Amino acid sequence: MEKVILAPDSFKGTMSATQICAIMREEILAAYPECRVLDVPVADGGEGTVDSFLQAMKGEKISLRVTGPFFDEVDAFFGLLGGGTTAVIEMAAAAGLPLAEGRKDPSAATTYGVGQLVRFALERGAGDILVGIGGSCTNDGGCGMAAALGVKFFNRRGESFIPVGGTLHEIAKIDCSRARALLSGVRLRAMCDVDNPLYGKHGAAHIFAPQKGADEAMVRLLDENLRALGASLEQWTGKSGIGRMPGAGAAGGLGAGMYALLDAALVPGIDAVLETVRFDDLLDGCDLVFTGEGRIDGQSLRGKAVIGVARRAKAKNIPVCAVVGDSLDAGLAPVYREGISAIFTTNRAAIPFSEAKPRAREDLRYTMRNIVALIRAAQSLTRS
Amino acid sequence: MEKVILAPDSFKGTMSATQICAIMREEILAAYPECRVLDVPVADGGEGTVDSFLQAMKGEKISLRVTGPFFDEVDAFFGLLGGGTTAVIEMAAAAGLPLAEGRKDPSAATTYGVGQLVRFALERGAGDILVGIGGSCTNDGGCGMAAALGVKFFNRRGESFIPVGGTLHEIAKIDCSRARALLSGVRLRAMCDVDNPLYGKHGAAHIFAPQKGADEAMVRLLDENLRALGASLEQWTGKSGIGRMPGAGAAGGLGAGMYALLDAALVPGIDAVLETVRFDDLLDGCDLVFTGEGRIDGQSLRGKAVIGVARRAKAKNIPVCAVVGDSLDAGLAPVYREGISAIFTTNRAAIPFSEAKPRAREDLRYTMRNIVALIRAAQSLTRS
Repeated sequence: MEKVILAPDSFKGTMSATQICAIMREEILAAYPECRVLDVPVADGGEGTVDSFLQAMKGEKISLRVTGPFFDEVDAFFGLLGGGTTAVIEMAAAAGLPLAEGRKDPSAATTYGVGQLVRFALERGAGDILVGIGGSCTNDGGCGMAAALGVKFFNRRGESFIPVGGTLHEIAKIDCSRARALLSGVRLRAMCDVDNPLYGKHGAAHIFAPQKGADEAMVRLLDENLRALGASLEQWTGKSGIGRMPGAGAAGGLGAGMYALLDAALVPGIDAVLETVRFDDLLDGCDLVFTGEGRIDGQSLRGKAVIGVARRAKAKNIPVCAVVGDSLDAGLAPVYREGISAIFTTNRAAIPFSEAKPRAREDLRYTMRNIVALIRAAQSLTRS
Repeated sequence: MEKVILAPDSFKGTMSATQICAIMREEILAAYPECRVLDVPVADGGEGTVDSFLQAMKGEKISLRVTGPFFDEVDAFFGLLGGGTTAVIEMAAAAGLPLAEGRKDPSAATTYGVGQLVRFALERGAGDILVGIGGSCTNDGGCGMAAALGVKFFNRRGESFIPVGGTLHEIAKIDCSRARALLSGVRLRAMCDVDNPLYGKHGAAHIFAPQKGADEAMVRLLDENLRALGASLEQWTGKSGIGRMPGAGAAGGLGAGMYALLDAALVPGIDAVLETVRFDDLLDGCDLVFTGEGRIDGQSLRGKAVIGVARRAKAKNIPVCAVVGDSLDAGLAPVYREGISAIFTTNRAAIPFSEAKPRAREDLRYTMRNIVALIRAAQSLTRS
């Protein structure tokens, strides 16, 4: 093996994609010290997204101070890639759950700082802006972010204000004209891997607000306010179906706000990653691709990192080995059809997850070691 | 791949070695239809041992009637291999637990029929006789088997009798002269993979008699009688240390009786199998060996099928892939050192054994399919 690409997703709850890359790399280099190993840890849009991109390709991490979730100031950052034309932002840097530690209140938190990060990226000349939306402490429907980019919100008395989760229902008028001008010619995308609608029992408030500190009463309030926001967005942006749009409920409704107020596209994280790192170019001359995720099944292929990786590798006839936590599903045929050559699980024994979890890194290392050993053995076999 | 050998042990409690071979074979042929696949299912000495040998090499299965465990008549069989020079016998054919169904009584059961099988094999001209000792319903210390081969047992009144578990303490004198003459020049071996001594808390009675139907009182009686037998054997055969000899307690003390009364060697099953099928010759021209077992660890290598297979393959520089149920042990370095190239477990998820067990065949098939797919992919890689 002369060139190998490592493009795993995280194993949710046990290992980040970057940690997985490190272990895979070590085991490959132990057996093939001359091999060129490229890390493409798949960013999931949450915390660590910027670092994942910077590990996969050259770039610069820009530090700056922005407005935090409670209108305080916080240290934040974004990434400039591709000589500065592409910016990668993780919303969690300005409005992530860890920033709300000690004061969890999704009815009061704002995404204003996320909009500031976008503005700074624009000032640095980026024309392609990717925003990972995951791990938020907010429920403001992206109104804060939009306000920072020039969108104006007015209440019934005609007063301008920055809506938060608790005041979304007060929006009486929205003016997007300045933001439209600012973002004209800019490609703005949200990396979004959840399908939740804006409101309702699968919406942002009911599904995600409890972990952000909302009690039952607040969840109901936030949900009603998001419903009101949905109506306002449709009324003032001319866009329809926002309430039912998959992903609208991501990051406390940031998905809906970015789409309606800022004309952003919601894209699966894996497509954004693979396009941005020019995965197709990286594949040239590649012998083998390793990918992986916490669980693989034959049903939910949409937006799956391993499938995105496999499709592109298959187009270039490059084999793909997937290392996964669980692969219990019997209907894996679609996964193989998409280009996965072989799947190996990291489970070394019939033990429950509570026992397997603390062993995750060790078991991944062991699994990789055996895969690499089998590859080495197979290379010396009769070729027929 | 042009030639592959399948030499798995059983996965205790889930699949026989023969079943494992069948699944492995199907998955290999699906990807490599021209591949020559040799089955060497590792016999464990219990039920199915003769069939395992007959699957691994040419031979004849001889049917005949012998004395059953309760001195009734039963249908039994043995195998003649290598043109008739080698006989394979499984003691369970004449004194196995299923034959005692409805009348489990290890104090009354005899191994007489096992001795008859040996005598028939001798009459057919076999000079190398291998007896798998596992799955017995007896506790007679092998006295029945020895009696069928000419050993004479006398009580205090000088009367000849055939001792069973309940009467072993009545032995006052043993005369092995006729059996010695009968077996002169014959190689008699017991395939024995348990280490239990003849008596005591790890002995035949305490460990195995309960599953043969003995209650607590009978266990104590049988244990005392085996202790008495140990003394008689040492007194009348001139052999020492029989009580503590590992394997003496196999098959209700049959290990001790075969060793002391019939000069048999107790050998690990895997060595007997691999020698008998001429495994070293089979390896010539072989690309890859698959082995496997229910559980692999770095501590207990002695007598392990996968290790026996690996050592022989390593000597001929042939890679070995082990497919196992569990491989939780961190200290597997000795296993790799012995010649195992790579180990894959059949566990596809972090679930307890109770859930994994009913999926065993399906999961083995899945694991094999992925191993074969990786081999196929690896064969096309740059060789460096």
